[in-house]
Amino acid sequence: MLTVLPVARAQQVIVQSLVMKPARKEPVSLQNAPGRVTAGDIFAPEELPSFPRSTMDGFAVRSEDTFGASEGLPALLNIKGNILMGKEPPGALAPGEAMSIPTGGMLPQGSDSVVMVEYCEQMGDSVAVLRPVAPLENTIQAGDDYKLGDLLLPSSRLIRPQDAGVMAALGLVKIEVAVRPRVVIFSTGDEVVPPQEIPQAGQVRDVNGFLLAAQVRENGGDAVYGGIIADRKESLLEALLQALAEADLVLVSGGSSVGTRDVAIEAINALPGAGVLFHGVAMRPGKPLLYGMSEGKPVFGLSGNPVSAMFGFILFVRPMLRMLCGLPPFSDFVPTIEAILETNIASNGGREDYVRVSLSFENGAGNIVRACPVFGGPGLLQTVVQGDGYFVIPRDVEGLTEGSIVKVTLF
Amino acid sequence: MLTVLPVARAQQVIVQSLVMKPARKEPVSLQNAPGRVTAGDIFAPEELPSFPRSTMDGFAVRSEDTFGASEGLPALLNIKGNILMGKEPPGALAPGEAMSIPTGGMLPQGSDSVVMVEYCEQMGDSVAVLRPVAPLENTIQAGDDYKLGDLLLPSSRLIRPQDAGVMAALGLVKIEVAVRPRVVIFSTGDEVVPPQEIPQAGQVRDVNGFLLAAQVRENGGDAVYGGIIADRKESLLEALLQALAEADLVLVSGGSSVGTRDVAIEAINALPGAGVLFHGVAMRPGKPLLYGMSEGKPVFGLSGNPVSAMFGFILFVRPMLRMLCGLPPFSDFVPTIEAILETNIASNGGREDYVRVSLSFENGAGNIVRACPVFGGPGLLQTVVQGDGYFVIPRDVEGLTEGSIVKVTLF
Repeated sequence: MLTVLPVARAQQVIVQSLVMKPARKEPVSLQNAPGRVTAGDIFAPEELPSFPRSTMDGFAVRSEDTFGASEGLPALLNIKGNILMGKEPPGALAPGEAMSIPTGGMLPQGSDSVVMVEYCEQMGDSVAVLRPVAPLENTIQAGDDYKLGDLLLPSSRLIRPQDAGVMAALGLVKIEVAVRPRVVIFSTGDEVVPPQEIPQAGQVRDVNGFLLAAQVRENGGDAVYGGIIADRKESLLEALLQALAEADLVLVSGGSSVGTRDVAIEAINALPGAGVLFHGVAMRPGKPLLYGMSEGKPVFGLSGNPVSAMFGFILFVRPMLRMLCGLPPFSDFVPTIEAILETNIASNGGREDYVRVSLSFENGAGNIVRACPVFGGPGLLQTVVQGDGYFVIPRDVEGLTEGSIVKVTLF
Repeated sequence: MLTVLPVARAQQVIVQSLVMKPARKEPVSLQNAPGRVTAGDIFAPEELPSFPRSTMDGFAVRSEDTFGASEGLPALLNIKGNILMGKEPPGALAPGEAMSIPTGGMLPQGSDSVVMVEYCEQMGDSVAVLRPVAPLENTIQAGDDYKLGDLLLPSSRLIRPQDAGVMAALGLVKIEVAVRPRVVIFSTGDEVVPPQEIPQAGQVRDVNGFLLAAQVRENGGDAVYGGIIADRKESLLEALLQALAEADLVLVSGGSSVGTRDVAIEAINALPGAGVLFHGVAMRPGKPLLYGMSEGKPVFGLSGNPVSAMFGFILFVRPMLRMLCGLPPFSDFVPTIEAILETNIASNGGREDYVRVSLSFENGAGNIVRACPVFGGPGLLQTVVQGDGYFVIPRDVEGLTEGSIVKVTLF
């Protein structure tokens, strides 16, 4: 029997329904790696830095030669030579010797530290060191950042700019990443026409095909728009069968009426190895959500109502898409904005309420952010277009009063 | 005279230095619009929805025909016909009449409301309505979402999935967006070699070219890698002149030693209509930041140190890049994660400290997030690769104690 599930339970069903397979891999160039997901642990193939470097302009010395040095009694060292950027030092450093070195320069053998130029006085071939330095001071030693074999990036990690940076530093110019999951998106409905057409009386343009494709791309999927399907079981079944042959995930949206919902249920139940796992989630907007599996591939039936479809994506499709991308379904760390609620809000007990708000910023004392609900049924796109984000009223809360602090997630 | 500026003052100089020109526009297809920035206000070219629609399965009625109806004394109406999805209703509704209608169906003329199917009992050609409906109940009227000429999206706005959705709904399939700014990125330094090469003793691979290009792309810019330039004024000047002919913004990184910093200052000062506006910001990491202008085009000189360059980008280059993208330099709403600091942290007064942290999540009571500083100098990439984000210790604060609440911005 199909019942209306709480949000967390529905998410659990979705996450547990996927049998994780090893990620399909593809190599990408370093330049194309940011935004992709690692398909295997990446280890340091050499140490970083590969040689001891100075972090200051000054003189490379043996620290013991400077012990006890002071302005009154400087340590006098022979200048053995000048170290140039990008070059090997001109020889090793013997006791009582120093070499001038730029920031980033390579320390000579025998030297373990650098005296900052501010504490040196050069006089011809010698330098007076006015302060002692400790061993390793003003240097980075070979391997201080990464040692050979250190884990650079674990598998299943989103590659950020700095991650590309560290791979560049280590010469990793081809990276194995997870192949982007292929997501086929259908819109259904006898009333739906493509956006470039002028709808006849009773017809509407397809919104969800474009909305969902954009959400899929934003979350790392390869979105394929499958077009508009008529509200008949046979048409939908045929489209699903064709899509599932190549897709990793199929999204169908449309059909908020009982008749069309039944069409989607029947079509999904008719797929090979298929089953509708649940139908309906206790939330608003987004209640009519259909989830099923065909031979290990997930199929979502989202509301025809764009706002409901959008929240259905955020709450249920995205965790699945993240898993197919090789990521954990949910991020532990979801950044939010604290804001002061500007009005009272009632909520029906027994379901989660996703309240769309527009934010305003009050310059001045405390930089206060205010959240103003954008009222309007889930049939109105303006609630998400004029809205900046949303907050959740949990199932067991009947409403919130003006002045409450809410945590807003940006769209 | 060049002095070290506080962060906010340096940002102000950068923002005020740009004379905003009208955005260069280009048309993109709706599918490619998400992630781009509107280059002009976008108005509703028609009303949405374009006809009155039912939001429920039920019967379209004249609400006045149902006034006073109850289970004991239902209103009996003649079924005039069935409304089909995507079709015009079969005629208008006269007093005493009803038509069956699906969710999303078009209301017939004469009808102003819909009775939910749950409150109807069909008996042959007539329907007994068990409850009254109010005018407009269970309907969306034409123009309820957007009226003809309503502002859909203002100029200078990032297009999100739902914004693409509303444009699809209104048939806007080609959108004028701001051209992505072209950002040319150079790395300088006699010690720097491309990542695919094996460095000789004293040489290092170029990190910043890849790090900065990824940051530019992540923020909507068109990144062009200009390669590695020798540390000589003439080489850098020539490269800058060539880049500025086509670029909207030029980033040069490298040179943390006094000599190479002077090379960058001299080269930027030698550009036509150029001036170095400041050199040095009171922050850590990122202090050695050079900013100048050549004939209205901004040029940044970032540290050769990758971590400093990365923060220089986040704090100074990004606001400029956003403006060149057509966006305001700073977002009013920056989502953060509240976390509990796990250790004491000291900070030098007089400069802002950007503390890199790794976050951990404590499942259970309160879902507590803990922030653990990733210690290490700005020369170590691990501080940003192992870090999840950062928080700021302001100039006038000397440090934070263990257990403090910090607001972490994710990288």
